[in-house]
Amino acid sequence: MTSLHALPHHDGSELYAPVRTPVLGGRYAVRLRIPTEFGRIESAAVRVVSDGEPCFYAMAASEPVTGTGDGCEWWTGEFDIPNPVTRYRFLLNTVDGDAWWLSADGVDRIEPTDNRDFRVTTFDPAPEWAASQVMYQIFPDRFARSAAADDRALPDWAQHADWTAPVISTGPDTSRQWFGGDLDGIVEHLDHLERLGVTLIYLTPFFPARSNHRYDASTFEVVDPLLGGDAALIRLVEAAHGRGMRVIGDLTTNHTGAAHEWFTAALGNPSAEESDFYYWTNPQQTEYVAWYGVPSLPKLDWASDTLCRRFIEGPESVLAKWLQPPFNLDGWRIDVANMTGRLRDVDLNREVQRTVRQTMDTTAPGRVLYAESTNDAAGDFDGEGWQAPMSYSAFTRPVWHWLREPSGDPAHHFGIPFRVEPRYSAADVVKSYRNFTAPYPWAVRELAMNAIDTHDTPRFAQQADDAAQIVAAGLSMTLPGTPVIFAGDEFGLHGTHGEDSRTPLPWGTTPRLADAYGGLARLRVASRALQRGGLRWLHADDECMIFVRETSEEALLVFASSGAATVELPRVAVGAVGEAAVSFGDTAAEQLADVIRITSTGLAFAVWHVVEDGEPVAQADAGRLVDLARA
Amino acid sequence: MTSLHALPHHDGSELYAPVRTPVLGGRYAVRLRIPTEFGRIESAAVRVVSDGEPCFYAMAASEPVTGTGDGCEWWTGEFDIPNPVTRYRFLLNTVDGDAWWLSADGVDRIEPTDNRDFRVTTFDPAPEWAASQVMYQIFPDRFARSAAADDRALPDWAQHADWTAPVISTGPDTSRQWFGGDLDGIVEHLDHLERLGVTLIYLTPFFPARSNHRYDASTFEVVDPLLGGDAALIRLVEAAHGRGMRVIGDLTTNHTGAAHEWFTAALGNPSAEESDFYYWTNPQQTEYVAWYGVPSLPKLDWASDTLCRRFIEGPESVLAKWLQPPFNLDGWRIDVANMTGRLRDVDLNREVQRTVRQTMDTTAPGRVLYAESTNDAAGDFDGEGWQAPMSYSAFTRPVWHWLREPSGDPAHHFGIPFRVEPRYSAADVVKSYRNFTAPYPWAVRELAMNAIDTHDTPRFAQQADDAAQIVAAGLSMTLPGTPVIFAGDEFGLHGTHGEDSRTPLPWGTTPRLADAYGGLARLRVASRALQRGGLRWLHADDECMIFVRETSEEALLVFASSGAATVELPRVAVGAVGEAAVSFGDTAAEQLADVIRITSTGLAFAVWHVVEDGEPVAQADAGRLVDLARA
Repeated sequence: MTSLHALPHHDGSELYAPVRTPVLGGRYAVRLRIPTEFGRIESAAVRVVSDGEPCFYAMAASEPVTGTGDGCEWWTGEFDIPNPVTRYRFLLNTVDGDAWWLSADGVDRIEPTDNRDFRVTTFDPAPEWAASQVMYQIFPDRFARSAAADDRALPDWAQHADWTAPVISTGPDTSRQWFGGDLDGIVEHLDHLERLGVTLIYLTPFFPARSNHRYDASTFEVVDPLLGGDAALIRLVEAAHGRGMRVIGDLTTNHTGAAHEWFTAALGNPSAEESDFYYWTNPQQTEYVAWYGVPSLPKLDWASDTLCRRFIEGPESVLAKWLQPPFNLDGWRIDVANMTGRLRDVDLNREVQRTVRQTMDTTAPGRVLYAESTNDAAGDFDGEGWQAPMSYSAFTRPVWHWLREPSGDPAHHFGIPFRVEPRYSAADVVKSYRNFTAPYPWAVRELAMNAIDTHDTPRFAQQADDAAQIVAAGLSMTLPGTPVIFAGDEFGLHGTHGEDSRTPLPWGTTPRLADAYGGLARLRVASRALQRGGLRWLHADDECMIFVRETSEEALLVFASSGAATVELPRVAVGAVGEAAVSFGDTAAEQLADVIRITSTGLAFAVWHVVEDGEPVAQADAGRLVDLARA
Repeated sequence: MTSLHALPHHDGSELYAPVRTPVLGGRYAVRLRIPTEFGRIESAAVRVVSDGEPCFYAMAASEPVTGTGDGCEWWTGEFDIPNPVTRYRFLLNTVDGDAWWLSADGVDRIEPTDNRDFRVTTFDPAPEWAASQVMYQIFPDRFARSAAADDRALPDWAQHADWTAPVISTGPDTSRQWFGGDLDGIVEHLDHLERLGVTLIYLTPFFPARSNHRYDASTFEVVDPLLGGDAALIRLVEAAHGRGMRVIGDLTTNHTGAAHEWFTAALGNPSAEESDFYYWTNPQQTEYVAWYGVPSLPKLDWASDTLCRRFIEGPESVLAKWLQPPFNLDGWRIDVANMTGRLRDVDLNREVQRTVRQTMDTTAPGRVLYAESTNDAAGDFDGEGWQAPMSYSAFTRPVWHWLREPSGDPAHHFGIPFRVEPRYSAADVVKSYRNFTAPYPWAVRELAMNAIDTHDTPRFAQQADDAAQIVAAGLSMTLPGTPVIFAGDEFGLHGTHGEDSRTPLPWGTTPRLADAYGGLARLRVASRALQRGGLRWLHADDECMIFVRETSEEALLVFASSGAATVELPRVAVGAVGEAAVSFGDTAAEQLADVIRITSTGLAFAVWHVVEDGEPVAQADAGRLVDLARA
């Protein structure tokens, strides 16, 4: 494989694109870092697609921008932002007469296709705080049960289960098994979340429904009394805010439950005001389109202005209500966002996105908007509406394919009919990650959810050991994007598919990975380079990957390996490594005359500070250096 | 490089996707050809994106579909078409436990991004005749001058030039130099076009203007009297139709000329009906947005309903007028289609496309609609509006980069600031071609214009010899898409950039490449496999490329080389080769026990019939076998 460290680099981070959010018609500056070993550049240009037509702007050699490795040239260029979404790439002519293209997914001699261009947008960015979060996903029924839960009457659909009972994960009882976790249960365990370094709690739906997952809401007006009702949500958000944590909810814009008050009003009743909220397939309005044909999940028809007004438009809407006092949620995660507003020859997805964002930005500014799009999310995520994808293509699946144990073979391959789960090399992971993230504007990449598992997937630990999980978690904490811990990952819980993974948390047992998560999370929260820095790949092979996260103030060298590895990086590519910020497994970085030699003997993950002339370029204040001791 | 012939194959041609144009909700069948040497398949699935969500449909092993090579398995699958544009790809699980993805650009172990999916649409296809055309592009001022031209009074902008005068290609006189070619001049040379095998004449603009290129129309109401006026166009179309040839015009939807009657009516006159046809930048309407800031080309504002109605909507529109009697044009090529309707935060491009197509389909069905998009055209070309791109990324530039002479170095690199034009291998050409064509639905690929040069580029012969030009022309005639000859190519004309390439045709000299073009064109017109057949790549390396075009009735093996090459293809990948349909250069195909050995000693191009059991799979009736003797 090509030496990644020898390749020219640009990304949308402040180091390489100092204007964070340009205005339409305004100036935008771009910088290139070109390693000396790549070859000398005679001329460079940035190619900008303007009103559909590519134009070229000459670049010029410039002063160094950072001290990270002195073996490079810097080139800069400027252009006027022509359109709300502007695509650009670079052309480099070497003194040897070679021509190279640099796109968002890397360097190529062959002319790249436009979908690989860098993208920058004029859309309002997410609030500053969004990029520094460590997210913890809670499936409320399974997290923790307060004493008050004992007094609650079960609705007809629910079947009581003891907290330690096995999870029913197939058949009709799967969604009925009620463990009784509630919002006050979460309040009672905020210490646990603090220990993990969590800053953002993502609650799967809290609205009343006829299932334990609650993606089949029966109303959006109140918090499910089974969870403690509105008051419990207020208590949770206030308690979290009191500790500097934030809380977001989960909204189903693709469908409601069949028990939803809108649906029951309209079912069989063509004169109901909610009549046009759904796609009826007979005049009597007794048959309808549903998510994947599941009758309990009737699909919403976003052509309805009334639906729009009541659900997502303006301060009186459902969407806005929960962001405002007394609830004060810090944002939303949108469920099945990729299907929302799409049916046959209708596609209102973008309109829904825009309305949701406009309502949030005007009635409750400073919130975040994640949205589910489980596969290639590029087409829907330029940041005009949804701000960040919850997806599995770029990070989750590639990391699984790399770190799984050969013996592990859960039945559920993310819904893909693999006979055997593929085996990726570390280099394959890097390639996949680059392919799927390349089309995102940098503002989207900074927030994209990087989960190793969720309530919709097998548990990572199902087919990988704790060491592999720490490596995977390390990557989620150090790559651009929002690191996600699915509640229970810190206990190393198992689960062969989404439903099977929704295990009640085994309070009273040791969360054996909690210190590892905590160390990683504290580094993440302390390091601006990990939150907002560029991502420069240095190396990838079968067993390991190495990258730098960097701002002009701070640089961190990140190493992850699945097996024994020895890599020598030229000093000029990095500078010098200082102390380890975190280190797990048998790994070391050795400073030699011209190279930095990084070695590991197996599964390992480490982050080193990059220093210059014996001094750190800057030092992230992680509170303490953590040796992520193997559990 | 991976052995292409050993890879699974699918494309949108009738052999692999027998339902040409599915209806929304209707069934669609797909077939896979999997070479035995690839490995045995245990299960296969087609992944279809439905309302934004991927779904998998199991496939099954099936009977062989074609006799082209018996060393393969066939698998088939079916799915319901969920959306007007449906994306799909394949997942193959081998008995060895490997998983492979097959997308439109090839086979990958790594999960591909969605933009690489195959696409099929429910949009009305172009008429049957469109896929069998050989296009000849004529720049009217430079093609041929009838005697009547001597009597025409020159307008003020024009500067008379003798037919043999050198072309002025820089400075203000470039567009004023008037050679006086006219439409009757074309009529007089239809024999020449017949000799070349031409079936479709593409005229650059024939409307009055203030330049020799006429892309700055002063009206769309009449044919320029300098070209002979309306009557001359009627004579030309009738004469062409009389010989079974068709004629299309060239329409500027992005801009008009500053002398256009719409623009002069609105300039400085805010109360004019045409006032909202343009983007004025001051209230007095004396300043305006123009194409690339060129004042003679004011940009049209498609937010104007009146513009829409007068230009492109309905039977009374400009667009419709010229397709109807007495003019009867067979279609349009749209100029600067990629910028049309796009400015800053406005993008009405898709709306213009839809209206243009609707007008054509309703007022003059059975016509074709090409559109210019000089670079990556994928985003605008799904066939809902424009039916086929005139682009340079997929074919023109890659073939140039491959076949140019090292000494050749025209100043104009298609507007790309290369210091030295890149050098591509044949394998690079194949990769580029696949990258840029992959996103097109097959219906678009069948018509995409494959030009080796045009009125906007250097002449191919400027930096390559006749032999290279025959190889390039051979590819344009045998790949999917519409082959394009720019008038004068058959004389081997030179030119360093677009303006410089607009040389008056040197009538009286020998069109030394005419027989080569004629032989290729006749093969193209006679062979359904070349028009509608699939495209299966067998081999690509530094010096040569080999592919098969095939229907269930006919298969052709195509070989192109830039240097000495010896390639052995397993018999099972092809079958057996029969007679050469065309052959140029020192090349041969030798049938051995298990392989077909193809050799060449330099620049070469050949097409062989594929036969089975000693009989042709089918034989294209090319009239004669042509030995494209080196000129």
